[in-house]
Amino acid sequence: QTLRVLFQYKPQNIDELLINVGDFIYVDPTQQSNVSEGWVIGTSHQTGCRGFLPENYTERANESDTWVKHREYVFVTAPRFVTETENEPNVKLDGEVHNPHWSGSITNVLSLQNVALRRGVLVMHHGERVDQVFGKSWLQQCFTADGKYYRADLNFPSTLPKRKDSMKHFEYDPPLSCCGVFQSRLIGEALLDHEVTVSYMYSSPALRCIQTAQHVLQGLKLDQKVKIRVEPGLFEWTKWEASKVIPNFMTMTELVEASYQVDTSYRSNFPLSSLVPSESYEEYVSRTSTVIKQIITACPSVILLVAHGSSLASFTRPLIGLPARDSSNFAQVVRKIPSLGMCFCEELKEENKWQMVNPPVKTLTHGANAAFDWRNGIVED
Amino acid sequence: QTLRVLFQYKPQNIDELLINVGDFIYVDPTQQSNVSEGWVIGTSHQTGCRGFLPENYTERANESDTWVKHREYVFVTAPRFVTETENEPNVKLDGEVHNPHWSGSITNVLSLQNVALRRGVLVMHHGERVDQVFGKSWLQQCFTADGKYYRADLNFPSTLPKRKDSMKHFEYDPPLSCCGVFQSRLIGEALLDHEVTVSYMYSSPALRCIQTAQHVLQGLKLDQKVKIRVEPGLFEWTKWEASKVIPNFMTMTELVEASYQVDTSYRSNFPLSSLVPSESYEEYVSRTSTVIKQIITACPSVILLVAHGSSLASFTRPLIGLPARDSSNFAQVVRKIPSLGMCFCEELKEENKWQMVNPPVKTLTHGANAAFDWRNGIVED
Repeated sequence: QTLRVLFQYKPQNIDELLINVGDFIYVDPTQQSNVSEGWVIGTSHQTGCRGFLPENYTERANESDTWVKHREYVFVTAPRFVTETENEPNVKLDGEVHNPHWSGSITNVLSLQNVALRRGVLVMHHGERVDQVFGKSWLQQCFTADGKYYRADLNFPSTLPKRKDSMKHFEYDPPLSCCGVFQSRLIGEALLDHEVTVSYMYSSPALRCIQTAQHVLQGLKLDQKVKIRVEPGLFEWTKWEASKVIPNFMTMTELVEASYQVDTSYRSNFPLSSLVPSESYEEYVSRTSTVIKQIITACPSVILLVAHGSSLASFTRPLIGLPARDSSNFAQVVRKIPSLGMCFCEELKEENKWQMVNPPVKTLTHGANAAFDWRNGIVED
Repeated sequence: QTLRVLFQYKPQNIDELLINVGDFIYVDPTQQSNVSEGWVIGTSHQTGCRGFLPENYTERANESDTWVKHREYVFVTAPRFVTETENEPNVKLDGEVHNPHWSGSITNVLSLQNVALRRGVLVMHHGERVDQVFGKSWLQQCFTADGKYYRADLNFPSTLPKRKDSMKHFEYDPPLSCCGVFQSRLIGEALLDHEVTVSYMYSSPALRCIQTAQHVLQGLKLDQKVKIRVEPGLFEWTKWEASKVIPNFMTMTELVEASYQVDTSYRSNFPLSSLVPSESYEEYVSRTSTVIKQIITACPSVILLVAHGSSLASFTRPLIGLPARDSSNFAQVVRKIPSLGMCFCEELKEENKWQMVNPPVKTLTHGANAAFDWRNGIVED
């Protein structure tokens, strides 16, 4: 039996369940003994958590709602049951304890039947970039007057890839921070834990995106198998670039020399020379919807796109048949998209359409680490 | 020639140097050709950056100031010159490009002479804890009603160490987040890059501190060599604990079973049973100053202490002969200390005293990653 949540309920006891509007709750009628009148024990579809909830905050869901929702679990092809004792703790950054509530359910049966047919596009925001933390002056903090790179804070990368006129071109095409590398690796490892098989990796030509793609592939242990297709058509809305011209991205030769696993044989859908500086919203929308349609035509299985905040809307809405987002508060929405924020679209081949569903892995939420000078407060009062 | 900075100067050109009050600037008189009147080319002691600066923002420093400052570089025993091309990029999270400005200077000569004599204490704040990001309700987000752990966000650890009454005891003794593990590893790797040899590792009995110590040792590649001495005397000022009693820390047996490299033969200076709940500031100050003196008496070389924010003041000030910090705004100061914030004291054996100097590695500064729901803003306008 499945319930749809009508009102939010915040737990007032440790054994109660937080439920949010729109969530589905799975209720096993055989487990409702010793439950007080008006309450049920259920498992949240959103969180996988289980606990007591007030029944009158919910309504019975339609069979079809549940069925569509169930289809999100296409990736769990072989559920594993990892317990704490079977694992060496603290050896890896991540790993996942699968929630045993889902095991053996109709979910996995359905997904096993459908997984061969399913095509999906996972659109991903790149990781933390150095200028996001250290501001535009990061180059001045990190380069000596004679052009030597210096790691002024441990969140700066240990080295920078070699490129022509690096001082000048890093300014408009900055690299990931170490934290950005951590974020990318963690997401890659989580995708691996969920046994997501990525067959195609596309990246915006921005260095931060190529680096994110590389580290996600390393986390997935696919860096020797899947090459990164650098696609200029995935670049940010050029109106938002600080530079009035298109940045000088690293060349294929430079990327290869810097050990990035790029696909040198890939011919882009939208050549770099076609990118218009300061493009209008209409030009941007037209470019992105054209490019995503070309990409899905070329790829029969799961595609990962690493690009920019705006990409999460611009490369998914054309697929699911939504018009372009209203441009008025687009910047505001995009600014809220965190590093490695994701949207996932999957194809319903039988119905000849795409739908947006939960990404195969959870979100990544962490705090900031502030600058620190031991002199302040520790020695001086 | 060394200058002391009297006024801050913010660069107005790319080849100018940011200088801060109190910093020292090294100036090589042989390199001042082609420099305009009133300007010099110098290298900042604080940042290692080099550039032009206005001479009248500085004064000549005393020989003795410079000498004391030079002594901070005890760790650079064998300067390496790593260039970008010699390194495989993106293989490690960190690594360090050493600033060639320091090479062959009197710095290294001095440090080579003194390194055998030098004893040091590096006090370190633990990494990001899960409740810092997800609040006190993290347990409700992560545990099902029947006590199964569930990774509700990718910043939660993949597994939790096994302990008695885990639900209850994790509440007052939470683990590190994945980001906290990343922070600890990065600092350990940076210490290794600077060839810091840690001979003794002490940790507060709080799980987050033991985990931080373990990951720092892994970054240092010392996890098979240096065991963690779990010292209850390093615990937080108990008045600040949410619990009115001393938390139930993991036992030695549980820590060993969870693969933490703890020193089971270590006899603590301050047994757990002596920790007073809700201790007064005077009791806390007395405990911490007693414990740090016992620790340095037992250890002839470099000691690393992983503990709490307050520890950065409480375990260093007694060494350098400062009275306890004024308690009035102590909480405010401590709250600002970031994860892996560090203070470093070194012994001047000849003078029979300790001084606080720059830690052997830089700070770690990174941004936050916000919670994200793809439904908001991407699909709905």
